[in-house]
Amino acid sequence: MLAELLLKCNRSRIGCMRQDQRSTCPISTALEVVGDRWTLLVIRDLMFAGKRHFRQFLQSEEAISSNVLADRLNLLVENGLVRREDDSSHAQKAIYSLTEKGLALLPVLIAMSAWTQKYHPETRRPEAVDLVGHSPRSLERLRAQLREEHGT
Amino acid sequence: MLAELLLKCNRSRIGCMRQDQRSTCPISTALEVVGDRWTLLVIRDLMFAGKRHFRQFLQSEEAISSNVLADRLNLLVENGLVRREDDSSHAQKAIYSLTEKGLALLPVLIAMSAWTQKYHPETRRPEAVDLVGHSPRSLERLRAQLREEHGT
Repeated sequence: MLAELLLKCNRSRIGCMRQDQRSTCPISTALEVVGDRWTLLVIRDLMFAGKRHFRQFLQSEEAISSNVLADRLNLLVENGLVRREDDSSHAQKAIYSLTEKGLALLPVLIAMSAWTQKYHPETRRPEAVDLVGHSPRSLERLRAQLREEHGT
Repeated sequence: MLAELLLKCNRSRIGCMRQDQRSTCPISTALEVVGDRWTLLVIRDLMFAGKRHFRQFLQSEEAISSNVLADRLNLLVENGLVRREDDSSHAQKAIYSLTEKGLALLPVLIAMSAWTQKYHPETRRPEAVDLVGHSPRSLERLRAQLREEHGT
C-alpha cells in the first residue's frame, strides 16, 4: 500500500535516525527544511516572481522582515536549495538563484496552488487550474524554463 | 505562461484582498492555512498513520506538545480540513477525521515525500519513489481508500 510505503513514521521508530533529525519520515524531513511559511514564500519569489536580490524579497505583499529574510536565505543556502553568488554589477553584491534541489520543489508549490484555487475561490484563477490539473507537459516546460533562468 | 498565471502575487496588488488575508497569492493563502510544520504533521498522521484520537497524535516521533496539538486541531477544524465528532465509545470522546478539503492535500504531501526521497536519501524508500513518480492511478486509489476510511 502506498500509504504504508510512504510513511511508516508513526508506526515504528526506525533505527537509522540522525541526531539532528527529529524523525525519519520523508514528510517530516521535508518540513524540517521547508516547513515554515516564510521559507516557501522566498522559494516562490525566486521561482515565479523573478526575484534575485535581497531588497526585492522585502517588497513582496507579505512583508517579510529583513531579519527573517536573512535567516531564511541562509537556511536555504546551507541546505543546498539556493545558491548565493557575487554580483559585482549590482549594488547589493549578492545574487540568489535556485539550485536543482530548490527547483525540485516546483510540484509542491503547484500542488499547494491547485489546492487553494479549489478551496479558496477568492484566489481562483481558472486558467491556472486547467494548466495545473491536466498537463504534465506544461509542468516540464516550466521546469525547463526555470532551469534556464537560474542557470541550473 | 503557467508561472505568470499561477502567481501574479508579487507583481501586482490585486484589489480583492480580504482583510484577514495578507496576500491574494494562492501559495501564500495555502501557507496561511497549512504553512506550519505541526499542522501538516497532524494531517499526515490523519492521512497515513490512522490516528483519530487526541492522545494518538501525541505519540508521534516528532513529539508534538498537547498545547500545540490542541491549537492545530482547532485551526484545522475551523478551516474545514478536519471534522471533530463525538465518539462515545472512546475515553477521549472526540474523534477526528479528514474532510474532502483536508484529503485534497494528498498531492502536497506526496510531492513533499517525493522531494525528500530524492534529496535526502537517508529517508529513501525506493518502492515509494516508483509509485509516487509514475502512477496517477495509484494516487487515485489511495484517495478513494482515504475517503472510505474517513467517511468523506
